[in-house]
Amino acid sequence: MSPHAEPAAPFSDTPLLPSIKGPADVKALPAAALPQLAQEIRDEIIDVTSVNGGHVGPNLGVVELCIGLHRVFSTPTDQFVFDVAHQGYVHKLLTGRSGEFFRGLRKTEGASGFLYRAESKHDAFGAGHAGTALSAALGMATARDLKGTDEHVVAVCGDAAFTCGVTLEALNNVVASTKRLIVILNDNEWSIARNVGAIAHYLNRLSTNPTYNKIHHDLERFFTSLPGGNEMHRLYSKWKRETKDFFMESSLFEKFGLRYVGPIDGHDQEELIKNLEFAKECDQPILLHVITKKGRGLPAALKSPEKFHGASPYDPATGESTAAKGTAPNYQDVMGQALTRFALADSRVVGITGAMPAGTGLTHLEKGCPRQFFDVGIAEEHAVLFAAGLATKGLRPVCAIYSTFLQRGYDQIIHDVALQNLPVTFCMDRAGLSANDGPTHHGLFDIAYLRCVPGVTVMQPKDEDELVDMLHTCLQLEGPGFIRYPRGAGQGVAIKETPATLPIGKAEVVRDGQDIMIWALGPMVQEALELATRLETDDGLSVGVVNARFAKPLDRDLLIEQAKTVSMIVTMEDHVVTGGFGTAVLEALQEAHLSTAIERIGWPDNFVEHGSTVEILRAAHGLAPDDIRHRVIQRWQRRHSIPIEADA
Amino acid sequence: MSPHAEPAAPFSDTPLLPSIKGPADVKALPAAALPQLAQEIRDEIIDVTSVNGGHVGPNLGVVELCIGLHRVFSTPTDQFVFDVAHQGYVHKLLTGRSGEFFRGLRKTEGASGFLYRAESKHDAFGAGHAGTALSAALGMATARDLKGTDEHVVAVCGDAAFTCGVTLEALNNVVASTKRLIVILNDNEWSIARNVGAIAHYLNRLSTNPTYNKIHHDLERFFTSLPGGNEMHRLYSKWKRETKDFFMESSLFEKFGLRYVGPIDGHDQEELIKNLEFAKECDQPILLHVITKKGRGLPAALKSPEKFHGASPYDPATGESTAAKGTAPNYQDVMGQALTRFALADSRVVGITGAMPAGTGLTHLEKGCPRQFFDVGIAEEHAVLFAAGLATKGLRPVCAIYSTFLQRGYDQIIHDVALQNLPVTFCMDRAGLSANDGPTHHGLFDIAYLRCVPGVTVMQPKDEDELVDMLHTCLQLEGPGFIRYPRGAGQGVAIKETPATLPIGKAEVVRDGQDIMIWALGPMVQEALELATRLETDDGLSVGVVNARFAKPLDRDLLIEQAKTVSMIVTMEDHVVTGGFGTAVLEALQEAHLSTAIERIGWPDNFVEHGSTVEILRAAHGLAPDDIRHRVIQRWQRRHSIPIEADA
Repeated sequence: MSPHAEPAAPFSDTPLLPSIKGPADVKALPAAALPQLAQEIRDEIIDVTSVNGGHVGPNLGVVELCIGLHRVFSTPTDQFVFDVAHQGYVHKLLTGRSGEFFRGLRKTEGASGFLYRAESKHDAFGAGHAGTALSAALGMATARDLKGTDEHVVAVCGDAAFTCGVTLEALNNVVASTKRLIVILNDNEWSIARNVGAIAHYLNRLSTNPTYNKIHHDLERFFTSLPGGNEMHRLYSKWKRETKDFFMESSLFEKFGLRYVGPIDGHDQEELIKNLEFAKECDQPILLHVITKKGRGLPAALKSPEKFHGASPYDPATGESTAAKGTAPNYQDVMGQALTRFALADSRVVGITGAMPAGTGLTHLEKGCPRQFFDVGIAEEHAVLFAAGLATKGLRPVCAIYSTFLQRGYDQIIHDVALQNLPVTFCMDRAGLSANDGPTHHGLFDIAYLRCVPGVTVMQPKDEDELVDMLHTCLQLEGPGFIRYPRGAGQGVAIKETPATLPIGKAEVVRDGQDIMIWALGPMVQEALELATRLETDDGLSVGVVNARFAKPLDRDLLIEQAKTVSMIVTMEDHVVTGGFGTAVLEALQEAHLSTAIERIGWPDNFVEHGSTVEILRAAHGLAPDDIRHRVIQRWQRRHSIPIEADA
Repeated sequence: MSPHAEPAAPFSDTPLLPSIKGPADVKALPAAALPQLAQEIRDEIIDVTSVNGGHVGPNLGVVELCIGLHRVFSTPTDQFVFDVAHQGYVHKLLTGRSGEFFRGLRKTEGASGFLYRAESKHDAFGAGHAGTALSAALGMATARDLKGTDEHVVAVCGDAAFTCGVTLEALNNVVASTKRLIVILNDNEWSIARNVGAIAHYLNRLSTNPTYNKIHHDLERFFTSLPGGNEMHRLYSKWKRETKDFFMESSLFEKFGLRYVGPIDGHDQEELIKNLEFAKECDQPILLHVITKKGRGLPAALKSPEKFHGASPYDPATGESTAAKGTAPNYQDVMGQALTRFALADSRVVGITGAMPAGTGLTHLEKGCPRQFFDVGIAEEHAVLFAAGLATKGLRPVCAIYSTFLQRGYDQIIHDVALQNLPVTFCMDRAGLSANDGPTHHGLFDIAYLRCVPGVTVMQPKDEDELVDMLHTCLQLEGPGFIRYPRGAGQGVAIKETPATLPIGKAEVVRDGQDIMIWALGPMVQEALELATRLETDDGLSVGVVNARFAKPLDRDLLIEQAKTVSMIVTMEDHVVTGGFGTAVLEALQEAHLSTAIERIGWPDNFVEHGSTVEILRAAHGLAPDDIRHRVIQRWQRRHSIPIEADA
């Protein structure tokens, strides 16, 4: 059992969690047993995440809240929509997913780190990106109203969700859409990093000086609880309307037409349940403002909330990471350090993150050059547009956003950055697989969705030194530049003292070959070199390798030159094959009227599940080194290559 | 001169507008001349838009506001960021773009209907999509602060901008980013349709019962205007802080840290200028709430604000449209009518628009089946997610969103709809060119950005009858379906009484051929048929045509069968060639190891400007029928076709 703070008084000598097979079992427990259940859940979460890694802090904060939800509501009839769903572990443990399945959290065949409709009927709506719960729940509540059924829909949103535009769009639509919706605002003052912006500041004022709203709430409950409660409530409502400037308008949320109740102590089980019961009976959309403590029960997590938001394996006693440390620095640190260096040397260079300073390595900039660092919260649309605004004034903004989250800023990329040809650099972190996190986090579509946009430069470095070169190069571009790179360790190469300016749209031949040329993008270059060696040694083929560097603009000259001499081109990318880098090569060959045989290696046209490692997932999708070699050989044997139009 | 309401007292017998060559000339006029200038601007706007079409209503509403801005601030040093920028006509007329250039509004070589950095140094930031101004202006103000200069940045936002998530994300970041930003909330109670949601409701309460805020504002100005104003202001601020629940917290915007001033009569030139002067001196971000009347000065526009938001050519006296009426109904009406029919027959079918009921044809549903109609405001992210929520409960939502605006919902398409395989239908209106509107409105990227997403079905009908079939088919899909179709008139075919269910991923051969097969998507089928006839008649080639119907999944079986027998495949699409439909065909041939010659016809990899007609723009980009014929013939003469791997 893991060590933890505040041990609860034991209710029973027998552990309770193993007997919880579903929400009915949660309801069947006597109230006095709940602290022990909460304790066991915290222990289990710490036990599992300390080995597997995972979202420790968010889940330790919502133990009492999730127990309360399952005491008061009945899933799957009632429906919970958890925002981001990284705080869904407790819900999983209470809905029949404890034991081996939960112990395999984030591993192949184990529980997902998020919620999935396919994983359980108790998961009403899946997620992985922030800010979706209110909007989806509003859709569900509206559907219920149209169908005339009467189940409850509960959106559980963190305070950070309210930095997301889509949550605010939904907030604006709540009252027009439904009369019955329960919103839990799980306020722990953090997104991944400490929360930013005016709403966070506002919530902080509410929770540190709660008297004002509490009067309102207590009065309301008092009137409602009186005999003839409905009539009393009507009178109270009337009075409230007439004095609205004093009471009704007290809360931001009430301006959006939601009844506001709070702040509520999110670790006081009884208080929580009472308020949830109140919300259940409410005849208008209601928001419960619940104050929770991220990481509650794990001292190390309380001390370092950002580190324990999503943690690698750790020692529960000390909080120290126990993840195997590679010798190579990771791409994130290399990027953050280089950006800091560039920003210190050039005041035009600024960095922007959407609530991920640590994840993207921008903490280096935050510490080293804070005036040139901006965390805008989980607000990718604004991040991109804000960068565009900065760029019009001669600055050189760098947006560091995960590939999958940049999908949120797609319109701004096209309409504001590319169309105006503004020099904004995008560091697309987590391009490729994010193995443990799964399909909501893989960055597998960025080349396809960017390649169609006119005037953009899209590149991927073969190693961390080239990442620095590319960042340096992007900062000199006259238009938008996108650099994609994977999560985690680089190739272990040294970083040059002076970065190189790469010629735009020029590839690099890293190995010569007569029969086959492999055009590889990013770390695939290293794999391609290994494949080339095997094909030469084992299969007697002469295989060259090109570090493509650019997915757009592609080095057409080199490609066409090679396509006329070798018999076959192989492309390798950590991206879906549909519309990706290999397709760019294919298009270029077609436009040059060349029919050189080509084999495109990349992720197939399916969503890729989560898994223990990238290697396991690649093997599962036919992308293990042996699979690739086999495909190349097969294609070689059936190849066709006639550069029929020599004048092309 | 056009007729208009409320003629102003003439200041001079000579027209003033021709003498306005730039903002300095606006400043040089005596105050007494401004009403005449306003009048002349309104006349000019009515004269030009009644012939060319354009955003009449929004511009007639901001005449005094734009005059005021140019009286108080000095562009290009000071910078205005107009949200959507469809209300930029007045600004254009005041910044040296009147005369012939403005009279060519929305035509080839004439002024754009929006603002472009490339069009004038007075256009600080271009736009065409809503909601971007606050965010971009915040970037510009922040850059100014970092650089230590002292120009003013003014964001001019409509009330509808506050239904957009990105505006709200920016609002949350204002105070953290800068101390000096001026926001004009141009409140006319309309987006394109009447504005929706809680913020609109809130603004309406503010403007209909302004006493409360006016007290606050008047007091503040009073204190600031006293001798020793700074000290008095300090005292006032202290008092305000201490009584914040009574005053300071009165406004939604003050919860976001902006000083709120308003409501201000947006047609009282003197009052506007006074308030703009006040804002100019303000030492914190400030929002001026300006009430304007959309269409002021044109009775017909006041009467029908939605029709005159963006109008076709019209008779200024009657407001009647003077646009040439085709005999074919347009795609929008056909879609709206069909959807209404389906919704009436099946209560699961619901329609969702993002503030475009008329533009998308959803007014038919709004009228015919209002319970199943939802206008969520300019909130595409929420529209898509809301639809996803509805779909989880068994409903069959149809999101009707312009192709270019759907870019805003891209992450929700991937993360919420496709990943969960929810049956949401997307009617992607304005796919292809939107000639007069230009690059912010062309829908040229949707196939590319959707094709990489696993599990989606993407289709385009050859005519309006097939559009109904496709809508009917989509409503039976188990996953997401996307239908793209152009703006405007269909092919004039009759709509079948009973729609057909189309087999998914199956194309239709509409003309046989031995030498060349043209795979065409959407209305390109008609063009392909004409091309085939010419190639047969004039060039002696046997050319077939396939109505591809599906960009994904492609009819690979038919394609491969044909590719083995004909010598050449031509693809035709109203979309960029990079990653589009032709690329899908190319990928399929490569995967089948076929090297049949292929020519892909589509828009090149550049942003396409605005122009008088689609035909003019196509000719300008090498896509006139003769250009295409020429390319096909050339390619034919250099063709190569050997289905080398007959077993493929």
